[in-house]
Amino acid sequence: MSKYWSRLAQNLEPYVPGEQPQDKKYIKLNTNENPYPPSNKVIDAIKLVTDDKLSLYPDPNGSELKEALANYYNLDKDQVFLGNGSDEVLAFSFMAFFDSSESIIFPDITYSFYTVYANIFKINYELVPLNEDFTLPIKELYKKNGGVIFPNPNAPTGNCIPLEDIEKVLIKNINRVVIVDEAYIDFGGDSAVALVDKYPNLLVIQTFSKSRSLAGLRVGYALGNKDLIEGLNRVKNSVNSYTLDRLALKGAIAAINDENYFQETRNKIMDTRKRITSELIKIGFNVIDSKSNFLFINHSSIKAVDIFMKLRERAILVRYFKMPRIDNYLRVTIGNDKEMDIFIREVCKIVYENNL
Amino acid sequence: MSKYWSRLAQNLEPYVPGEQPQDKKYIKLNTNENPYPPSNKVIDAIKLVTDDKLSLYPDPNGSELKEALANYYNLDKDQVFLGNGSDEVLAFSFMAFFDSSESIIFPDITYSFYTVYANIFKINYELVPLNEDFTLPIKELYKKNGGVIFPNPNAPTGNCIPLEDIEKVLIKNINRVVIVDEAYIDFGGDSAVALVDKYPNLLVIQTFSKSRSLAGLRVGYALGNKDLIEGLNRVKNSVNSYTLDRLALKGAIAAINDENYFQETRNKIMDTRKRITSELIKIGFNVIDSKSNFLFINHSSIKAVDIFMKLRERAILVRYFKMPRIDNYLRVTIGNDKEMDIFIREVCKIVYENNL
Repeated sequence: MSKYWSRLAQNLEPYVPGEQPQDKKYIKLNTNENPYPPSNKVIDAIKLVTDDKLSLYPDPNGSELKEALANYYNLDKDQVFLGNGSDEVLAFSFMAFFDSSESIIFPDITYSFYTVYANIFKINYELVPLNEDFTLPIKELYKKNGGVIFPNPNAPTGNCIPLEDIEKVLIKNINRVVIVDEAYIDFGGDSAVALVDKYPNLLVIQTFSKSRSLAGLRVGYALGNKDLIEGLNRVKNSVNSYTLDRLALKGAIAAINDENYFQETRNKIMDTRKRITSELIKIGFNVIDSKSNFLFINHSSIKAVDIFMKLRERAILVRYFKMPRIDNYLRVTIGNDKEMDIFIREVCKIVYENNL
Repeated sequence: MSKYWSRLAQNLEPYVPGEQPQDKKYIKLNTNENPYPPSNKVIDAIKLVTDDKLSLYPDPNGSELKEALANYYNLDKDQVFLGNGSDEVLAFSFMAFFDSSESIIFPDITYSFYTVYANIFKINYELVPLNEDFTLPIKELYKKNGGVIFPNPNAPTGNCIPLEDIEKVLIKNINRVVIVDEAYIDFGGDSAVALVDKYPNLLVIQTFSKSRSLAGLRVGYALGNKDLIEGLNRVKNSVNSYTLDRLALKGAIAAINDENYFQETRNKIMDTRKRITSELIKIGFNVIDSKSNFLFINHSSIKAVDIFMKLRERAILVRYFKMPRIDNYLRVTIGNDKEMDIFIREVCKIVYENNL
């Protein structure tokens, strides 16, 4: 604590991202990165614009990338907002659409950054407890609120709700902004993008970090009606005119244009997820049905934190959240098949040793 | 205006950056970009890390770049903060150090983003009018305040104050944070970095966009005592964990390590500035003494807005601010010699035509 900090800074409880250890080589199954590299076309596109022009500011509107995304999702360019990763898009959304006068609502088990945003931007919130099986009690999202936000699939559970449920939430909250945070939607869920033209209160947020293998490039985006996008632009242009650099803009365009590679890698991840799910069940794990690139698991007889520690000793990182209701679960990113074979082998050993 | 916008979003007056026209080729002397390309070593470094690892998140702490900057400025690593351009660093600084309870102070003629930040983060402010000749009345910065911020050199005037004046401001405001925004310091001013170890209330903000020719890469940083840096980190980690992508981090390290190229290009710009200043004076311009990579000029007999429009027709962009006290001035970025020769030639013609 420093006397120089604002009251705001003093009261913050910053988000703590998953470890990115620089000390030794781990199998990293803790931050939901994609185990497959980005498309070669992305690499080529970035190398091509790594030139003299880096001395010039990027296009502050990112028009070319907006156009590529608009084409991809069959929307207009002014229905697309760009940000430095979906976290920045989320932060700007809290500022653009939520007021302190009414509480926004989101699930009690969810992306832990939401409470951090609510805190820094002084937005009151009310938690909607998930059902015992971690499914979302849709009707609880009908209650009076100042806005709704939830990830779909949910994080860190991987649970996904169908579009018809999202539509009900949109209708019941037609005067409030409903944000569907779709960081993981490309791994088997149905995107609410299909509803953007129908509901003026829907904002869908996606990212290049997961399904496009570009966590290292920092590109996220929002899709919604043009009034919402204009609200986001007003906030962004009051904070930072140029949030995406020249290389990120070009790389993202190449990624969105390589549909074959995208389909190939996401299918591989979904196949691996299926295989690993059944392997884990065989050795006594409860595995939440996942439509994401991670699994949320707990074991019938070994504490999650113990498995977490033992895996860490074996140079395998998974994510453990010391939080109410989920402190006996682990979130395990779906790596490539080789990584997951090692993961399963080591988990088997841990289970075996425990049974001795 | 949309009913979905927060009250905050409704009341914003976003910053408007200089034009980045995509329609035709201009000589761009309007956004203070460096006319020289970045160091070849930057290009090489970026190409080298344009690889598979883009699928992984960058180091959220940017440790390697912090270390390079700490070495360069002879500071500790925990005296360095990194951001997505100095605008983001400024935004986070307003959140981290300024409260709504007391008014911060800054010059009436200054970087126009300050009022935008004050507005979005609900910080009251009081303007300190510059003297008639656009110099800063230092003693006016001694008055009671909730924080002080000013650019040095000032923007858009290019005026620079000496370190002894900055030191007086720091002493008189020892319980308040004093931010010296040094985006343009490398073009002839003395950096307050030399005072960082002496004054716990000093935050110096710099950028790779100008003197390092990397506006397209989005890297800015702050230097200050470690309490101030921790305050900034608290804010950043409550908004976006990863604000700098892998390529920007590596490119910036290569830039800071190529001292020869940095000296060579900044000297070229200072030489050109000197030459252009005397050319402009010869044809009736008043030129404010500049320690930056731009000149702030007005003409004895032609309105600034007319020169601006006539230059634009001739495919030369300069910056015109329709604001009190400076609406008869133009801000002209120092381009390379060839660009400036064309600029001078066209300005001469405009002056000549006016005299007919």
